[in-house]
Amino acid sequence: MSNFFSEKYKGLTPYAPGEQPQDMQYVKLNTNESPFPPCEAVAKAAEGAAKKLQLYPDPDCKTLTRALAERYDVAPENIILTNGSDEVLNFAFMAFCDADHPITFPDISYGFYPVFAEINRVPFQAIPLREDFSIDPADYTNVGCNVVIANPNAPTGLALRAEQIEQIAVTNPDHVVIIDEAYVDFGAESAVLLTKNYPNLLVTQTFSKSRSFAGGRLGFGIADKALIADLNTVKYSTNPYNINRMTNEAALAVLQNDDFYMQNCNIIQKNRAYLSDALQGLGFTVLPSLSNFIFVKSDRIGGEALYLGLKKRGVLVRHFTAERIKDYNRITIGSREQLDILLREIKQLLEETI
Amino acid sequence: MSNFFSEKYKGLTPYAPGEQPQDMQYVKLNTNESPFPPCEAVAKAAEGAAKKLQLYPDPDCKTLTRALAERYDVAPENIILTNGSDEVLNFAFMAFCDADHPITFPDISYGFYPVFAEINRVPFQAIPLREDFSIDPADYTNVGCNVVIANPNAPTGLALRAEQIEQIAVTNPDHVVIIDEAYVDFGAESAVLLTKNYPNLLVTQTFSKSRSFAGGRLGFGIADKALIADLNTVKYSTNPYNINRMTNEAALAVLQNDDFYMQNCNIIQKNRAYLSDALQGLGFTVLPSLSNFIFVKSDRIGGEALYLGLKKRGVLVRHFTAERIKDYNRITIGSREQLDILLREIKQLLEETI
Repeated sequence: MSNFFSEKYKGLTPYAPGEQPQDMQYVKLNTNESPFPPCEAVAKAAEGAAKKLQLYPDPDCKTLTRALAERYDVAPENIILTNGSDEVLNFAFMAFCDADHPITFPDISYGFYPVFAEINRVPFQAIPLREDFSIDPADYTNVGCNVVIANPNAPTGLALRAEQIEQIAVTNPDHVVIIDEAYVDFGAESAVLLTKNYPNLLVTQTFSKSRSFAGGRLGFGIADKALIADLNTVKYSTNPYNINRMTNEAALAVLQNDDFYMQNCNIIQKNRAYLSDALQGLGFTVLPSLSNFIFVKSDRIGGEALYLGLKKRGVLVRHFTAERIKDYNRITIGSREQLDILLREIKQLLEETI
Repeated sequence: MSNFFSEKYKGLTPYAPGEQPQDMQYVKLNTNESPFPPCEAVAKAAEGAAKKLQLYPDPDCKTLTRALAERYDVAPENIILTNGSDEVLNFAFMAFCDADHPITFPDISYGFYPVFAEINRVPFQAIPLREDFSIDPADYTNVGCNVVIANPNAPTGLALRAEQIEQIAVTNPDHVVIIDEAYVDFGAESAVLLTKNYPNLLVTQTFSKSRSFAGGRLGFGIADKALIADLNTVKYSTNPYNINRMTNEAALAVLQNDDFYMQNCNIIQKNRAYLSDALQGLGFTVLPSLSNFIFVKSDRIGGEALYLGLKKRGVLVRHFTAERIKDYNRITIGSREQLDILLREIKQLLEETI
């Protein structure tokens, strides 16, 4: 830290992304990436866009916004595109939260929420999940402040139903309810269409997981046009050209081939059932996930021991040190081949542990 | 604006990017883009990167940072990469400015500085340029607050010498001096190497202009490693994956072909002399620019009339409405072919105006 760093940030602990060690070739099941590469049209689109990089991108991303609006059955003015969904989430903390407008979210959820709150100096309250790690929607009805909920939640994978989200939106008409649907395409119910009825509801999504686009950086928010206008005020006051030409064109190619990606999401759901069954067969507790990862623990091996043992064997999963979840690991649903390697290594680890 | 928009932003006027009208094919000399497309390796690199978009990019951008460090003769820990240089500028306003640490900059300069100040609620003072539109370095020595200066300045194109920048840095040891070198590759002196001696000096640059990369979005900051660490704290608290895979790989290809781009910068400088001479021959006042644009006025036609007349004729230049500069237009140095079209249209306009 320099002597020049603003006092207001001196207690700040930045978000720690999932590790990406380079010392060997890992089976990467730790950052919820898709095991499937993008369709061929994506690389072609990126190549074409890269031939015109001397020109600024359209800051409004009009073409891509229209395509996305059509895909989600909303109007273009209901959408903002961002450099990953982290950016739209940060914009929302900036636009709608302040010292007088605090926010609440589950105690076990996306680790970036408290960081967004701290960097924007927004008071926050973390509401404990139930004993079974599910969110009690009653904790958020009439809660009297802004809300952000990941649905499905991470790292648990558990989801609320759309009617439960609606209940939260309807009972907090004077506060913004943000539903972070980064993982919604793997079986959960989306709240996107509820944004037509609730001017306080902001739904965020990302191409990172379901569209094999974590490396392309495209997130978006869907909401009433007044909320979107506010988010655009923030965007145009910080980084108007946040979506580059290659991401723009590549994402258009994604949308033109969305069936391919939705089929991949179906495969992920089948693989999730396969892995869940296999781990339960090995005595694991597996939370009923609706996302592209599962949250699991074993009575036969501790959470950290499993994580470290797998890492030594070339398989990365995500371990968290927070007290309530330290016995668990979050495992990304990879390809069948990746999952079979994982299962083989887990079996060997369990045998050695006996 | 929604009812939910934070009070703190209610007076905010976002930055207005240069217009990009779609009604016809314009000769675009209004946003300081390069007239030269990227080298072929760039599109190939983007295509290759796009085949792996299912994977997150390296948030530290280690390979690209190393390449850039080598190019600029600094260490990797002296560099932060950002999504355009707007992002590193905003990070700097966030990290180093606050209610107790105001900032100052020229009254006529990059229009984003007051926006960055307002969105971060940083008090600022705009110091008038001299009558001839040059910056008086004495206005910034011992100024007792943070400083941001575009060098060369925009929209004037006028530059300070490195020793003048040094004088500003050395006389403000307790404040951060930000030198925005977006246009430095067209003939001005860079302050990059001064960062080795002055821990309060941050130099920002961009690939947008000199590297034909406005559509790719890559900016960077060079400074003492403590300043860079603070900027990284901000980055990792807002958007850790700010550089996507395609931008990362394409920018590496740019650096591997940097001679090509530096030759293009030389051509721009020749074209700048050509256009300046031709306009002076038509009676224009042309400020002595060291950037990829010139700032010009004519006694024979008003600034707005010239801008509108050229737009009608398919040539876009940038006009500003601020009182002090409303007689001027900023014209990007394009290709010789573009400049000849511009000159032809200006001549016709002047004839019609008589």
